[in-house]
Amino acid sequence: MGGKKSQGDAEIRRSLLHPLTWFYFIFVVVVAALFGGGWEKGREGEDEGRRGLEKKRKRAMSVEEVKEAPLEQEPQQATKEPEPVVTYKAIVLTGFGGYDKLKVELKKDTPIPKSGEILVRVKACGLNFADLMARQGLYDRLPAAPPLVPGMECSGLVEAVGDDVADRKVGDSVIVMNRAGLWSELVVIPASNTFLMPDGMSFEEAAAIPANYVTAYMMIYDFANLRPNQSILIHMAAGGVGTAATQLCKIVKDVTIFGTASAAKHEVIKEQGVTHPIDYSTLDYADEVRKISPNGVDIVLDPLGGSDTTKGFNLLKPMGKIILYGAANLLTGPKRNPLAIAKLWWNKFTINSLQLLHSNKAVCGYHLGYLQIDQIQDAVTKLLSLYKEGKIKPRIDSVWSFEQIGDAMKQMQERRNIGKVILVPEAKKAEN
Amino acid sequence: MGGKKSQGDAEIRRSLLHPLTWFYFIFVVVVAALFGGGWEKGREGEDEGRRGLEKKRKRAMSVEEVKEAPLEQEPQQATKEPEPVVTYKAIVLTGFGGYDKLKVELKKDTPIPKSGEILVRVKACGLNFADLMARQGLYDRLPAAPPLVPGMECSGLVEAVGDDVADRKVGDSVIVMNRAGLWSELVVIPASNTFLMPDGMSFEEAAAIPANYVTAYMMIYDFANLRPNQSILIHMAAGGVGTAATQLCKIVKDVTIFGTASAAKHEVIKEQGVTHPIDYSTLDYADEVRKISPNGVDIVLDPLGGSDTTKGFNLLKPMGKIILYGAANLLTGPKRNPLAIAKLWWNKFTINSLQLLHSNKAVCGYHLGYLQIDQIQDAVTKLLSLYKEGKIKPRIDSVWSFEQIGDAMKQMQERRNIGKVILVPEAKKAEN
Repeated sequence: MGGKKSQGDAEIRRSLLHPLTWFYFIFVVVVAALFGGGWEKGREGEDEGRRGLEKKRKRAMSVEEVKEAPLEQEPQQATKEPEPVVTYKAIVLTGFGGYDKLKVELKKDTPIPKSGEILVRVKACGLNFADLMARQGLYDRLPAAPPLVPGMECSGLVEAVGDDVADRKVGDSVIVMNRAGLWSELVVIPASNTFLMPDGMSFEEAAAIPANYVTAYMMIYDFANLRPNQSILIHMAAGGVGTAATQLCKIVKDVTIFGTASAAKHEVIKEQGVTHPIDYSTLDYADEVRKISPNGVDIVLDPLGGSDTTKGFNLLKPMGKIILYGAANLLTGPKRNPLAIAKLWWNKFTINSLQLLHSNKAVCGYHLGYLQIDQIQDAVTKLLSLYKEGKIKPRIDSVWSFEQIGDAMKQMQERRNIGKVILVPEAKKAEN
Repeated sequence: MGGKKSQGDAEIRRSLLHPLTWFYFIFVVVVAALFGGGWEKGREGEDEGRRGLEKKRKRAMSVEEVKEAPLEQEPQQATKEPEPVVTYKAIVLTGFGGYDKLKVELKKDTPIPKSGEILVRVKACGLNFADLMARQGLYDRLPAAPPLVPGMECSGLVEAVGDDVADRKVGDSVIVMNRAGLWSELVVIPASNTFLMPDGMSFEEAAAIPANYVTAYMMIYDFANLRPNQSILIHMAAGGVGTAATQLCKIVKDVTIFGTASAAKHEVIKEQGVTHPIDYSTLDYADEVRKISPNGVDIVLDPLGGSDTTKGFNLLKPMGKIILYGAANLLTGPKRNPLAIAKLWWNKFTINSLQLLHSNKAVCGYHLGYLQIDQIQDAVTKLLSLYKEGKIKPRIDSVWSFEQIGDAMKQMQERRNIGKVILVPEAKKAEN
């Protein structure tokens, strides 16, 4: 998290350049829409540059620094004392594009954990909206350009332990978080990127915890500061974050939950705890909320972006909070859609300090990818104890084998899932 | 809170018009700087219009509506059964400008509380930064144009009770909140705008609670969600909100408080609980904070506006929150300063949803003047019980008579106060 200040300054400069940037962007988008392939090529060149930079950064990083920037780390392979080479499956993103860009490859390697690291045999992996965006080249936190192994969460068994690892031993069941690289049968990872699984938790449940529950937890209990008798609007209430958020809201007394989902999912999300399911595809959700709560809601969780952010902001009661945590409106089909990008940019919510001063509202941005493990440690610890108390339980929508990665992504992209979509290394039939 | 939606829409439209508005504003400011008097006159004409509108609104408001919009209410005089006329002192703002625009007048009236109202004999009034802004014509929540009686908080004794008031009786000590009209010896006010004073609380302390403590409480415990071991930057730490905020932060375990104030005040604010006082007049406060806390702070309370908001935002740690609640940078002297207005406008902080999405930060706007009594009821109730527990105690800087209103304002404007500046109706020597 080095260049924090210069990053902030850059943001300000960017906002000052705003009108110019705007027109430039539209120009680029129109050109890209006309000459789609050319844009892809241009981006690939840019990615080459990024990859070179990434390699340099990795070379410059000592083992001591691993703890400093764990989420920046890719699983590493040991170099000294090469052991018999092992083979294992991994899902590889071969380039940006549709479902066909993901392939299962057989890796040959000698995965030995170095100091501070452990070797994990992966049992289950979580699929996230960010992975779908990444496939389309729309996720800015991929640590390198393709080809690379994606995957930001998994669970498994510790198979070997490096030096200076005191709190993990062979046979431990662990939850693993990383910026990428976890959709693999074997993973070498800093021990500090892992958490011990509570008794009774399945590997599928464990793989469903990191991204969705941490996101929901930090949004609801930190930014939104949810309290008894308040109301909240949860978009995509049947999704991974949606079901996690619903369960976490239910822990607070008398919270009214408005949740959007297609009508077919209403029964299930009601069972999960949503007070008022809204079919966003046939009704205006803001109107529906106001019919029941004319003054609006206390909290809006916004994974959509674009004009929905403005709509959410306007739906807030005094002292209300909207938390932006995604741009699902970008995902209109299996491939990147330049018009959706332009629309999102054009309709983006903008506010200045003079407008905010009179609003009695809060606008928050949340992005797990920009946080480090030590910044989310509290949330994970609290979540695991809530699991032990039986207050949360990940809802698994379906389980797919590595080979079915395309179908698994389709399940999410076409919004058919209710709960978490899980990948497992071994061939297994889908249950949906 | 009717036109919430259209107000939100207007904000969006305004932000779309942004570049145009900007240049138009600078043009207006430059013209105003050159022909200052003309601008004043123009505004007075505009104010006439506002006043007419305000009168109409008052006529249209029934007694039943009083509870709906208590902060919109001006103290009202009874009309039926006229009693012997009484005379009482009140401070009147005769026009926008310097200290001389405030005059003590003798009112002749028959103040009889109507249904739902009480008559209060005022013992002490609070002075706020908003009052200084109002005098210069910079506060947008004055209920009417001058001449009017300002004052948004006071304390006193109940002298008469209207029909349908069950929870107040003659002799009760009460705290009173209103949008204006409270710098007066006698005040007729809806009972719902008042709170019973706890035993042992002085009238001066009571008059120091509403604006400053409610603001500090809602910012720190609602928006900022302050938790143990966090850090906070409090600007103007010796001021009314500053001392209130410091006391409220001390209630949470192990909070590090950075507080800006001139060097002469450092001893006192340290006693109040500020961990690291910073002399903003000789040092860059952001640099000073980073010397002690290189990663920045969890919370910034920003009453300044302009470039300080950007500076504060950049000072935030991940998951940090900045709360904007004023524009003290506008107040550079006794009279309105068009260049300060232009500077604040030019340097205003602007952010859009795409920038926020990656920031892991929250930007909140707080304005007590746009909240209604029922929206702050919880905060007042909690504050009064914290007072009873001895956890908060307003620090009174100085007490001035109505006739000394100019000097009292000067005390604040020249940043000489440490704690709350109080007005009392009877002639009394200043204690500073």
